Amino acid sequence: MDHFSDKLAQAIAARRSVVCVGLDPDLAKMPVELRDKYAVQVEALGDYAAVAACFAEFCCGIIAATAEVAACVKPQAAFFEQYGAAGWQALAEVIACAHKHELLVILDAKRGDISTTGVAYARAIFGGAPGFAGSVAGLDADAVTVSPYLGDDSLTPFIDFCAHGKGVFVLTRTSNSGARRLQERECDGRALYLHVADLVADLGAAHIGARGYSDVGAVVGATAPDAISAVRAALPQAFLLVPGYGAQGAGAQDLAGAAGGLIVNASRSILYAPRANGEEYRSAAARAAEEMRKQLEFLV
Amino acid sequence: MDHFSDKLAQAIAARRSVVCVGLDPDLAKMPVELRDKYAVQVEALGDYAAVAACFAEFCCGIIAATAEVAACVKPQAAFFEQYGAAGWQALAEVIACAHKHELLVILDAKRGDISTTGVAYARAIFGGAPGFAGSVAGLDADAVTVSPYLGDDSLTPFIDFCAHGKGVFVLTRTSNSGARRLQERECDGRALYLHVADLVADLGAAHIGARGYSDVGAVVGATAPDAISAVRAALPQAFLLVPGYGAQGAGAQDLAGAAGGLIVNASRSILYAPRANGEEYRSAAARAAEEMRKQLEFLV
Repeated sequence: MDHFSDKLAQAIAARRSVVCVGLDPDLAKMPVELRDKYAVQVEALGDYAAVAACFAEFCCGIIAATAEVAACVKPQAAFFEQYGAAGWQALAEVIACAHKHELLVILDAKRGDISTTGVAYARAIFGGAPGFAGSVAGLDADAVTVSPYLGDDSLTPFIDFCAHGKGVFVLTRTSNSGARRLQERECDGRALYLHVADLVADLGAAHIGARGYSDVGAVVGATAPDAISAVRAALPQAFLLVPGYGAQGAGAQDLAGAAGGLIVNASRSILYAPRANGEEYRSAAARAAEEMRKQLEFLV
Repeated sequence: MDHFSDKLAQAIAARRSVVCVGLDPDLAKMPVELRDKYAVQVEALGDYAAVAACFAEFCCGIIAATAEVAACVKPQAAFFEQYGAAGWQALAEVIACAHKHELLVILDAKRGDISTTGVAYARAIFGGAPGFAGSVAGLDADAVTVSPYLGDDSLTPFIDFCAHGKGVFVLTRTSNSGARRLQERECDGRALYLHVADLVADLGAAHIGARGYSDVGAVVGATAPDAISAVRAALPQAFLLVPGYGAQGAGAQDLAGAAGGLIVNASRSILYAPRANGEEYRSAAARAAEEMRKQLEFLV
């Protein structure tokens, strides 16, 4: 089985792109033509399923429009879970749609639990839960984001899937202001997030691909440039997944120090890119993604 | 709107019980009569839906059998998510079934995210996501477990729902051996988990009910008795949700120091209690729950 890290490195090189398109569907921001199309289906489908179908069409449109210039996509599980079973079904369809377009999928789920519960979360995302007639496929994402507070044994249920071509990104230093409360706290002489980086290094060492990257990466917010450099120093072989580009305010210059093994996420600035008069939402998204790809091409 | 903490305190007092029944359905451990009933439905329903229907019947059976002696139930989201949209639907049915039996539901989901994503997770669990025809109800749980690594602003999207009668339990010191890696690390002179307890105290202070408890509680593993005492000292007004009783090895004596405002979870030892010859699984579960209730009645 190919390493996740090799597949990701190959996608970046082939498209000369570090762009990850974040799929955060928000009903209030849906293109008006999609809102109009699905609002009238509430009576037939129910409200949950009408919104979920709207999200699925929107995200598949974005995927088709950006597939040539994105290295991967990152659906945000929360936005789908709001709409219950129908939302979960839409999430599964969006992941299948990305795979049809040969795009890797990082599911942003921020899970983390121990023992059989950790295994169940990993199976929900990567597949393999037992059914009556063999194991079931689950969401079949390629990688997942996980939260480290519970420690090593909450990460290994996910990391065990690296042997099956999957990847894991551990929240390390996030982009929000509240990150200071715990992540920046000094513990035994270093910020807590650097201890998390050590944990990522330890757990990732057994999963290095042919291109020299580990299947276990770290999430580091673009709003904390010092943190990006410090995490890169601690994790020379890890992919760093950097959210917070574009709408959240960070720019390309903040990333230069960590070039190589970077994936930079933008969501709103691509999904809801301003449309020229009469322009399709897909065309606006494709243009925004290509602009971002060019701006960040020096990081490939 | 009544405080969640008042509703929980009332349930504990009315039933003289600190027992929380953990709903962790595992296909390999299902009663043989349920396995037989649903295995033959794979062709008609598909494998995901057959397992999900089996879990829903099992969990509703456990709920009906333990409703008189449990203070609340705690479904573990992971076990349902393994079976996709059908699993999510079964989770919603199980929560509705608990409400029909007038049991509070703590959804063990260990979520945590910031900004609009945090709000979306909270809405998925508590309701309120926008639909085309008004807001949708989501899972309508009464409380949720959350992970604190992202800091204050990853907890407030959930805690904001305390104004609507909901509760939040923040992972503080968990029961697994890996908890030592980060949670026990000394930060500015104290273990990290005590800084998390401070955060819980800060955020919970604005949500104290009529009975003197906060709607914002903490999860503290029964396998760490010293941690339970230390967290209780830091959080005199918080409910402590204690997993790890029974199957994970901790006993009643480890909890005495934190009496008052305790909820003690057991999953496997109740769900899969040994059955006498010919006994129904519901009857075995009811007996195990009542034994636990009696053992822990001194903690009410």
